[in-house]
Amino acid sequence: MSTRTLIRGGLVVTAAEEIHADVLIEDGRIAALAASGTAAAGAWTAEHVIDATGKYVIPGGVDAHTHMEFPFGGTFSADSFETGTRAAAWGGTTTIVDFAVQTVGHPLREGLDAYYAKADGKCAIDYAFHMIVSDVNERTLKELDLLVEEGVTSFKLFMAYPGVFYSDDGQILRAMQRASANGGLIMMHAENGIAIDVLVEQALARGETDPRYHGEVRRALLEAEATHRAIQLARVADAPLYVVHVSAEEAVAELAAARDKGLNVFGETCPQYLFLSTDNLAEPDFEGAKYVCSTPLRPREHQAALWRGLRTNDLQVVSTDHCPFCFTGQKELGRGDFSKIPNGLPGVENRMDLLHQAVVDGHISRRRWIEIACAAPARMFGLYPKKGTIAPGADADIVIYDPHAEQVMSAETHHMNVDYSAYEGKRVTGQVETVLSRGEVVIDARTYTGRAGHGLYTPRSTCQYLN
Amino acid sequence: MSTRTLIRGGLVVTAAEEIHADVLIEDGRIAALAASGTAAAGAWTAEHVIDATGKYVIPGGVDAHTHMEFPFGGTFSADSFETGTRAAAWGGTTTIVDFAVQTVGHPLREGLDAYYAKADGKCAIDYAFHMIVSDVNERTLKELDLLVEEGVTSFKLFMAYPGVFYSDDGQILRAMQRASANGGLIMMHAENGIAIDVLVEQALARGETDPRYHGEVRRALLEAEATHRAIQLARVADAPLYVVHVSAEEAVAELAAARDKGLNVFGETCPQYLFLSTDNLAEPDFEGAKYVCSTPLRPREHQAALWRGLRTNDLQVVSTDHCPFCFTGQKELGRGDFSKIPNGLPGVENRMDLLHQAVVDGHISRRRWIEIACAAPARMFGLYPKKGTIAPGADADIVIYDPHAEQVMSAETHHMNVDYSAYEGKRVTGQVETVLSRGEVVIDARTYTGRAGHGLYTPRSTCQYLN
Amino acid sequence: MSTRTLIRGGLVVTAAEEIHADVLIEDGRIAALAASGTAAAGAWTAEHVIDATGKYVIPGGVDAHTHMEFPFGGTFSADSFETGTRAAAWGGTTTIVDFAVQTVGHPLREGLDAYYAKADGKCAIDYAFHMIVSDVNERTLKELDLLVEEGVTSFKLFMAYPGVFYSDDGQILRAMQRASANGGLIMMHAENGIAIDVLVEQALARGETDPRYHGEVRRALLEAEATHRAIQLARVADAPLYVVHVSAEEAVAELAAARDKGLNVFGETCPQYLFLSTDNLAEPDFEGAKYVCSTPLRPREHQAALWRGLRTNDLQVVSTDHCPFCFTGQKELGRGDFSKIPNGLPGVENRMDLLHQAVVDGHISRRRWIEIACAAPARMFGLYPKKGTIAPGADADIVIYDPHAEQVMSAETHHMNVDYSAYEGKRVTGQVETVLSRGEVVIDARTYTGRAGHGLYTPRSTCQYLN
Amino acid sequence: MSTRTLIRGGLVVTAAEEIHADVLIEDGRIAALAASGTAAAGAWTAEHVIDATGKYVIPGGVDAHTHMEFPFGGTFSADSFETGTRAAAWGGTTTIVDFAVQTVGHPLREGLDAYYAKADGKCAIDYAFHMIVSDVNERTLKELDLLVEEGVTSFKLFMAYPGVFYSDDGQILRAMQRASANGGLIMMHAENGIAIDVLVEQALARGETDPRYHGEVRRALLEAEATHRAIQLARVADAPLYVVHVSAEEAVAELAAARDKGLNVFGETCPQYLFLSTDNLAEPDFEGAKYVCSTPLRPREHQAALWRGLRTNDLQVVSTDHCPFCFTGQKELGRGDFSKIPNGLPGVENRMDLLHQAVVDGHISRRRWIEIACAAPARMFGLYPKKGTIAPGADADIVIYDPHAEQVMSAETHHMNVDYSAYEGKRVTGQVETVLSRGEVVIDARTYTGRAGHGLYTPRSTCQYLN
Repeated sequence: MSTRTLIRGGLVVTAAEEIHADVLIEDGRIAALAASGTAAAGAWTAEHVIDATGKYVIPGGVDAHTHMEFPFGGTFSADSFETGTRAAAWGGTTTIVDFAVQTVGHPLREGLDAYYAKADGKCAIDYAFHMIVSDVNERTLKELDLLVEEGVTSFKLFMAYPGVFYSDDGQILRAMQRASANGGLIMMHAENGIAIDVLVEQALARGETDPRYHGEVRRALLEAEATHRAIQLARVADAPLYVVHVSAEEAVAELAAARDKGLNVFGETCPQYLFLSTDNLAEPDFEGAKYVCSTPLRPREHQAALWRGLRTNDLQVVSTDHCPFCFTGQKELGRGDFSKIPNGLPGVENRMDLLHQAVVDGHISRRRWIEIACAAPARMFGLYPKKGTIAPGADADIVIYDPHAEQVMSAETHHMNVDYSAYEGKRVTGQVETVLSRGEVVIDARTYTGRAGHGLYTPRSTCQYLN
Repeated sequence: MSTRTLIRGGLVVTAAEEIHADVLIEDGRIAALAASGTAAAGAWTAEHVIDATGKYVIPGGVDAHTHMEFPFGGTFSADSFETGTRAAAWGGTTTIVDFAVQTVGHPLREGLDAYYAKADGKCAIDYAFHMIVSDVNERTLKELDLLVEEGVTSFKLFMAYPGVFYSDDGQILRAMQRASANGGLIMMHAENGIAIDVLVEQALARGETDPRYHGEVRRALLEAEATHRAIQLARVADAPLYVVHVSAEEAVAELAAARDKGLNVFGETCPQYLFLSTDNLAEPDFEGAKYVCSTPLRPREHQAALWRGLRTNDLQVVSTDHCPFCFTGQKELGRGDFSKIPNGLPGVENRMDLLHQAVVDGHISRRRWIEIACAAPARMFGLYPKKGTIAPGADADIVIYDPHAEQVMSAETHHMNVDYSAYEGKRVTGQVETVLSRGEVVIDARTYTGRAGHGLYTPRSTCQYLN
Repeated sequence: MSTRTLIRGGLVVTAAEEIHADVLIEDGRIAALAASGTAAAGAWTAEHVIDATGKYVIPGGVDAHTHMEFPFGGTFSADSFETGTRAAAWGGTTTIVDFAVQTVGHPLREGLDAYYAKADGKCAIDYAFHMIVSDVNERTLKELDLLVEEGVTSFKLFMAYPGVFYSDDGQILRAMQRASANGGLIMMHAENGIAIDVLVEQALARGETDPRYHGEVRRALLEAEATHRAIQLARVADAPLYVVHVSAEEAVAELAAARDKGLNVFGETCPQYLFLSTDNLAEPDFEGAKYVCSTPLRPREHQAALWRGLRTNDLQVVSTDHCPFCFTGQKELGRGDFSKIPNGLPGVENRMDLLHQAVVDGHISRRRWIEIACAAPARMFGLYPKKGTIAPGADADIVIYDPHAEQVMSAETHHMNVDYSAYEGKRVTGQVETVLSRGEVVIDARTYTGRAGHGLYTPRSTCQYLN
Repeated sequence: MSTRTLIRGGLVVTAAEEIHADVLIEDGRIAALAASGTAAAGAWTAEHVIDATGKYVIPGGVDAHTHMEFPFGGTFSADSFETGTRAAAWGGTTTIVDFAVQTVGHPLREGLDAYYAKADGKCAIDYAFHMIVSDVNERTLKELDLLVEEGVTSFKLFMAYPGVFYSDDGQILRAMQRASANGGLIMMHAENGIAIDVLVEQALARGETDPRYHGEVRRALLEAEATHRAIQLARVADAPLYVVHVSAEEAVAELAAARDKGLNVFGETCPQYLFLSTDNLAEPDFEGAKYVCSTPLRPREHQAALWRGLRTNDLQVVSTDHCPFCFTGQKELGRGDFSKIPNGLPGVENRMDLLHQAVVDGHISRRRWIEIACAAPARMFGLYPKKGTIAPGADADIVIYDPHAEQVMSAETHHMNVDYSAYEGKRVTGQVETVLSRGEVVIDARTYTGRAGHGLYTPRSTCQYLN
């Protein structure tokens, strides 16, 4: 016999609708929605009833870009799948898509299995994987087909980091051709890393070693260049393309031009590019290191272009690129040499709130908030409508969100396993109150009631946005 | 006590979702949706149950651009509100937004009241009005505020037809400024009519009198020019803009450029521009007159740009600009002088089917079909979510659509009051089976069960798309 | 027997070359150039020898846009053909193309003859005429053909000043069609005057009467709009187009886009847009009135776009639009109502020096200076190679220019008949030393040696830039 | 005592002027020009008088892109400096800039000296060198400064041919930075060779081995991509850029966009792209191999964009990329594998005539012919005004050109050392009659009167086009 939960009286906000409706959950899935106050709604009963009066009832967030326990620069990102997914739940995110990593010279299979093992039994919320392909060759190209069949339908390549993750244009083209054939989606880190590394070397030789030089050498023009190049290669391969962590106005312009042509080209940005800037990278006493990530933070003027891109749908998704490194002991590896600072910021817990603040600030509408944070990432990566919406048949991944609560972001109070907050002291309006994951309450009126292992691996279908 | 209708077993398709769900209607509104096969769905009972197995359950179409009983060129469009709305219902459209017309020198009020009277008690489906402002002056500008309050929230201006509907750039600017203040939306017929009339005169003087010259003199560049000008004026006024019946590739490019800047600029196209071309205008024996409308049909190459614009969301709405004139007696007024052919085509009955054919042909997705034909026009003109979607609380305007039925379009079988079909002989896949308007069945398994007067006037709120 | 003048030892700078050469003049024309120091040069003798060692030897300037004794706003521009052309000579300009004005309702012939008479026997340097067509109709269109034959090959139309010079888009199109047929060049004042007049009226109604509001109401977007519209009309007519006094960055962008397409579209800017800005319009105590002209001065940021346009050849010509009104008695007509300030600035004497300063400042090269100030206007308006270059066969209109002299611009010292200088106190490097007009010395080491009546009317051939 | 030659009665055509003038030559240089019929002209006498009545007197052509005795694909281009420069003279070209080649691992010095030696004493006309840098590293970067001082002021890099000439983006950036500092000009072969080589391998694997597949795999998009990338790298380095052998419309668009921004970006195309197409590559019986060069010939539609680019000055130079390989024995190396066909076409003898034909055909003006073929390459590569014009002080490199003569191009009659003509059977109007190189007649009324060794090495200054 089924268990039933009923969420009464809230404003259900999805990417498409804002309706006063009661939500009936049966066995972890959304069984039905009824307009509040109708006879149909009145007839419902349930074991567990949640009163959402005055609150938003929204889909759980889908963060399509996280790096838990990620090896980078000789260390690992500080959140495990356990701590990271718990923090995600606290922040109203109920699905993450993390990145399994191939080691150069080893099969994709091996890297993927290692990540299955890392995450298994640890996660507070559901999770899935993209695959980082470090080594495109005949063998790994064949493996891509198998991965798509198994539900790992997106492959990340890097135009930066030569000698580590870098693929050359021939490898990229081959991978795109394969994706074109098997339905996979190429995700691209679009920076001209070959040129950037020259500028890094020259900056260091000039004694420019502070964190702010990280922002200067990774030129916006070189992000735009790589974005353009990736688009042209995708056109040659007739493949779709998803550009991760877009930060430069000039890169948005390349995406807009491609999309005007009707190409299947997509762009993601991250809260750090929307709310932080090179001003942060320039903070004294090596504090700027907290904000070192790639693509880098840009001068404040770029933010307007990113918000505009989100409104015009030239950018479709906001993910976090959550990849936290502690200031003490990790970020400090780069004292005296910015190129040794591990690249990454914490953020998986902050995304839904920061984007709600953008609603309050008038940058985006309420529905667009849900679209870029829940629905679009789910569609982009083949999780919709299981994830990303509130509709009959969907997983009951639901957040009761208090739009009027105020909070101050801080490392003191956050749940991510990292010793600083990128948004320390920032006051925002809106807070997650209660979170359900497949019908189970994992955050209950701001108490964690979940458990490691509740979260399940979720295979994905292919991108649902292709023309 | 409420009446209940239950639609079982269909695939509910909206702009946002495709779900297997049962739809429960109470008192003319959608009360609830439940996933098919759930306990919640199973518990429902109703007086009237419709089996939609194997069918689509879609929102009734919203045709935001029709002209019933419209005075043009010394005659009137051939469909009355009675015949036209009945035909609309046959074609799966459950709401039209028609145009009340101001007579130059008379108040808007008078024109609007005349249209209220024309439509009252005649319509088979719900209807609303835009206002054609023929005479922008101090008095009419003040009336615009009252119209917005009363639910007539969009105002059509013409850059063409000097001496009839034409407004000059100063009038346009003033009207836009007023709309910027009162929330109204300016709808623009964007053709440089002053220049076009020169070309018309010159063509006639050269003896170029056949219908095809109508297409030649109304140059695509002059549609693009007017589109660009309207956009610039809207920027000066800081007002939103909706361009009606976009037909030229160059005009789409102007819209795309404006939208890339994040401007509140919107575009509508019509089935005739998507499916017909100057080839039709060139049909011999004056048959081309059947296809005379303005903006005119374009060479076939423009169609790809329109489809692309619909995919990239540079065009948001497909309306019909339904404005039928009989070939015999009406179109014939222009024998020997194309400029005397009444401008307009029938189409209100064909739109939903033609756009479904576009799904079959791979031009657009199933959800995009519903978006451009139902949801977007409803949002654009302040009717959402009452109209345009299937969601708890919405009006129960629902179509049961058979995606596999085949039909051949023809004047023999259509229900519009006009002696020809613009799509005579065209075979399409998909057909309306049953139509509900506010819960009442008006087409029942392809039998008309509605009545004149069922349709109600529906005041509108303002555009729901503004950034 | 011929009179011979020899200019020895200077650096001859033309649009194409910089050569150390001696210039031999016979009978008012340049007979030969010989490399300095060659046997050929050494063999030359002459009645009159000018030593140009250390100086530039440049073609006399061609100012293609002046308004002497021009009726505007109920008054006349303050320079007569006598005073204005003498001042031009002082400034190194040896040819002006002024504007004959048609009175509405009267033939072009009548207006042109009046200007022939005004200038006859008065000018210190050679002159020609464009024709302002105030009233495009069947009769005046026919007259255009005659004007071209007679050497008046360019016709100015206005998209601004409704009720005075304004032509509507139909009139513009007809005039362009005629020009397309007869080889004439349409010159366009590109501002949407219909929209601007609405903004003027609204500003005055708000009590915004100071000169700076002149700059605010004449929006850059409305210059760009009109520029775009003129280009599209020219495409429809398949006619070339010359846009006068371009001042807005957005208008330059329209020209650049048109030229990238290979269209015969040309642009002129003026020194006031390159060196002055809205800061001047905002000068207190009604001093801003000195800088009132249309198109208006723009915010300083636009200057970079104009300089770039001159470098990229998206702008081809720098003319002055010299149209001086005295501050006392003329500009003062607009106290309390900026719309009554006569539009225009003095500048015919300053152009060559200001543009040389641009060479000193690094904005343009030395050859480009000569091109935009001499060669391009001569080619554009059918005066080349008679005017605009130093080449065998050309008129001996030559300036000996001292590139190292310093001067301060001032109404105290200038020779224009106006009580202020738009560049009062501006220090520039470079000065005209000696000026020859058809071989006669009219300025001799900064003494005026010319005379009224030396200057001859010069009929023109058609534009020499057409693809 | 000086030798004097006098060219009487011709029409002197330069990039800037068309004048009826006599040209006086003293000691190999142009001493003076005098207007025909003047006293000054009449006074001249000379040992040698050439009657140019009815002919054009034009500057000798400057072909800035030739490859004599060039090693490629295991063979050498078929023209030696002796045969190639003699053929150039026959075709009216009096200066070539050829490419010295660095061998990977060896100093630039060594490669340059080898080319000095190859050419020394062999050439019929003057010559200079660019340097192909095959191996950008710390040592060679330092050598670039020395080369600039010595008159080798332009450096060619390749984005294609990995493993042979290819430089990666880091090497390109470093070379551009060096050029930015020392005034050198980077010349770029802009094709994404890494991606192209993947497509080559895949085509061959599919059995697509015919010459026409050479054109298919070298995608226009990949030329445009590399062009864009080179421009962005040049922006990062703040260096000028010259893109060689532009053939794709999409690449022209990248250049136009860069130039609209005012960047120092230049483009060259070649006669083969203007007159030939993929139709030639598809000629049967392996005849297509005659037309194999890189960038490849494009579909015929691209030609219009190239002509337009030449008219709009988005392309500045037409060189030949003369690199002939005999069909027999050389082109045949690629039978059964298009990738083994030596890349290159003969053309040094045909350029001036083909471009004159473009004047006859209306693609360009007479002055533009001289500009793109003589003046612009001379300015671009620091040879002006010594080369590229007819002006006092310039080298007396002069062609007497008969604009009315007709000829048929053919391997039967041409003077290049190659067994086929790319333009076999093409009839053109216009022919070189007499050629002077530094005052010496090397072609005299279509008889070769020159000699190997007359031609001198000509060091160059830096690019004369920089803003």
